[in-house]
Amino acid sequence: MDDWSAEQYLKFEDERTRASRDLLAQVPLSAPRKAVDIGCGPGNSTELLVDRWPGAEIIGIDTSADMLRRARERLPEQTFIEANVAHWVPPGDTDLLFANAIFQWVPDHLRQLQRLLDTLSSGGVLAVQMPDNLDEPNHVMMREVAHSGPWRETLVGAARAKDRLLRPGGYYDALRPLCRRIEIWHTIYNHVLAEAAAIVEWVKGTGLRPFLDPLEPAERKEFLREYTARIAAAYPLQADGKVLLRFPRFFLVAIK
Amino acid sequence: MDDWSAEQYLKFEDERTRASRDLLAQVPLSAPRKAVDIGCGPGNSTELLVDRWPGAEIIGIDTSADMLRRARERLPEQTFIEANVAHWVPPGDTDLLFANAIFQWVPDHLRQLQRLLDTLSSGGVLAVQMPDNLDEPNHVMMREVAHSGPWRETLVGAARAKDRLLRPGGYYDALRPLCRRIEIWHTIYNHVLAEAAAIVEWVKGTGLRPFLDPLEPAERKEFLREYTARIAAAYPLQADGKVLLRFPRFFLVAIK
Repeated sequence: MDDWSAEQYLKFEDERTRASRDLLAQVPLSAPRKAVDIGCGPGNSTELLVDRWPGAEIIGIDTSADMLRRARERLPEQTFIEANVAHWVPPGDTDLLFANAIFQWVPDHLRQLQRLLDTLSSGGVLAVQMPDNLDEPNHVMMREVAHSGPWRETLVGAARAKDRLLRPGGYYDALRPLCRRIEIWHTIYNHVLAEAAAIVEWVKGTGLRPFLDPLEPAERKEFLREYTARIAAAYPLQADGKVLLRFPRFFLVAIK
Repeated sequence: MDDWSAEQYLKFEDERTRASRDLLAQVPLSAPRKAVDIGCGPGNSTELLVDRWPGAEIIGIDTSADMLRRARERLPEQTFIEANVAHWVPPGDTDLLFANAIFQWVPDHLRQLQRLLDTLSSGGVLAVQMPDNLDEPNHVMMREVAHSGPWRETLVGAARAKDRLLRPGGYYDALRPLCRRIEIWHTIYNHVLAEAAAIVEWVKGTGLRPFLDPLEPAERKEFLREYTARIAAAYPLQADGKVLLRFPRFFLVAIK
């Protein structure tokens, strides 16, 4: 996949940051020494950590140079490191591993979560949020358009870029033996967007990328035209002309 | 219905209070003059309001004398009033109407929410949480047992004690014209309980009451036996022998 576009991602910063805030609110730490924002993106989630614990050492890691550049501009005093979490080992004095909207892209994420939780000392916290929206109309329709157009062969792998999530009991059974306590929940947001086209803009920054990136410009345009038409049919207008983007997200907070 | 049992309700205080905390976290007020905890119960939600805004006037209202007695013991400096929200008018300087797990019991709750939102001044907040769990196994099975036993006639009205919730778009359309901004979401908790019998204990304090209250003691015992057997079959044990109680809840925060 191409480098992530920080600009596209930040178009819905308020809405996207709500999930980070909700995750952070459930982290029961008063004064961590070191906290790592895994998949820090352009630093909006990192900034929440800095605001909550100004005395802590906050580190951000990400694989995208564009995102890291934006994060460093936003928070010049923090440390940002280019690293892939799949091959990364947390420093020994880490008290918090905070991972907002990243592990859905990491192959075999359950084993990775077990490995990372295992590295923490007693009292350390692993806090994870992942979109759990692959059965929502906007994701179902990406796959439908991918299967039904001339780009079918090109996009055969696109739908596999994200692993499906387990049910909550699967995370409980896999992680509970490694920690003292675990909280698992879903929140289903309803983001108020101006029109159906805004739903397309939203996913262009994230979930649509594995579908658009392999296409030539003309195909890309045609894919988007077809996709937008389906989205407009699937998301009815509210009385005031807006649309509600239903967005289920999975949360997990494990206390070592 | 008989008076609510504060003792039974408080058995799962930590888990029940999580929803209040999550609702409160989304209320964007820094210094309300007056906040009313509607359906304050034994005062656990009221205490959260007092802790967040020690300088505000916090009032609790409830219909249950037992709950109000416990609330007054817990928070002797606050005002607690016996009142039914369906016929109650907020004082003019109210900045926050906070209603945790009450409106599911109020007939025609959407019209009541409209009425209450309408009484607030600009900047005032209406914050509401309701269980949205009538399709969960523990509620489906209450109705199944009610329909299938000798108590069938007695319990014909029990399932109607709670209105079904609308979909989020219904609340949006009804309340959005009355306010500046509205946030609507669901959170689905997974409460870790010791065994299936604990799920029965949980609902004994709330949802099961309209089913148990009309029964004679012997019938009540038999109803519970049958219900507990079904719950044990529906909620599989986790690897560590516990059960997860999946609990969807609806949240709404409207800013006038």
